[in-house]
Amino acid sequence: MKEDISLSVIKRLPRYYRFLEMLKVNGIARISSKELAERMGLTASQIRHDFNCFGGFGQQGYGYNVEVLYKEIGDILGLNDGDTMIIVGAGNLGRALASHDTFEKRGFKLVGLFDSDEKIIGTEINGIKVQGADNLEKFVRSNRVDIAILTVPKAAVQPTAELLAAAGVKGLMNFAYTELDLPEDIAVSNVHLSDPLMYLSYRIKNK
Amino acid sequence: MKEDISLSVIKRLPRYYRFLEMLKVNGIARISSKELAERMGLTASQIRHDFNCFGGFGQQGYGYNVEVLYKEIGDILGLNDGDTMIIVGAGNLGRALASHDTFEKRGFKLVGLFDSDEKIIGTEINGIKVQGADNLEKFVRSNRVDIAILTVPKAAVQPTAELLAAAGVKGLMNFAYTELDLPEDIAVSNVHLSDPLMYLSYRIKNK
Repeated sequence: MKEDISLSVIKRLPRYYRFLEMLKVNGIARISSKELAERMGLTASQIRHDFNCFGGFGQQGYGYNVEVLYKEIGDILGLNDGDTMIIVGAGNLGRALASHDTFEKRGFKLVGLFDSDEKIIGTEINGIKVQGADNLEKFVRSNRVDIAILTVPKAAVQPTAELLAAAGVKGLMNFAYTELDLPEDIAVSNVHLSDPLMYLSYRIKNK
Repeated sequence: MKEDISLSVIKRLPRYYRFLEMLKVNGIARISSKELAERMGLTASQIRHDFNCFGGFGQQGYGYNVEVLYKEIGDILGLNDGDTMIIVGAGNLGRALASHDTFEKRGFKLVGLFDSDEKIIGTEINGIKVQGADNLEKFVRSNRVDIAILTVPKAAVQPTAELLAAAGVKGLMNFAYTELDLPEDIAVSNVHLSDPLMYLSYRIKNK
């Protein structure tokens, strides 16, 4: 069944999860699809369609139980599976991500940091010591690392990604703007930090 | 006319722009909507629909001229308007963004960096000296800054955003996970770095 779920539905799941978390923090116990839609800038029918892809949650008229829905979407997203991750590239961006407490809150466990710069190797970030890039493959294999965040220079992305894929990493979050050529069973998320800026530029031009 | 364009179409524009840039770099001069769709994981009819929101480009059967389309979408996005930006918060993330060369490539001009930490004020990043937060309002007013990137701690986001809005900033890129309460004419892009990780988690769980 799950193979039929479209990418756009899947990509909305993290957003639902975040919104529900915010409702929970604000002490809201129940919400209708209409109200959730309004807050999220979607339509109620889109929300019901999305949720039906996963069997549907809650009852119409009665609304969704925020706590239950939050937990169910978290389960669907696999946030309770204890995925481990490493950050490859411990420059400014790598260090910022190593201290990003939301990752841990979402269930991701940072287990290693890697860099090839002798000046950075051995320094500690958020309690984790930066290791040399030559340890990378062995570490990934022996610790069965699930996810790697790549903040390496563009030219290093493809070879590093290949090494990580061969060592058993299942997912890559890539901050360098390159299309990766990898085996199909490796999940890749490319992060484009200039997209939000381009969106703002459009808004400013067309207001 | 432009008011009727849906948010999801607008949010796809940066992606089209990036893809066209990549085609250009790879020396591809022409592309059909079908081929562009395949490469982007969209449908050809969705691409034609999106482009028609802006009057449509190119001819069917003949395909799009990559160079022309790239320039037109850049114009629609306002990337040639010389938008200026500042980064507020010069910690690891702020410093990483200050050195992110894609921003400049897309036409955004970094003109200032701000922090409230005495140890950081006066240091230089990418040729720009970090100023104290008490200079912020005056600087924004006298330099007519268009966009501010906020990498300040969560508690500081709302007051900083209000100050920036009052001083004339038109767009905010917010990295802290908070909903901002601002005048409607201020464009806001919230960046959620854990969304791509949650997507990877889903993929890993459901492969």
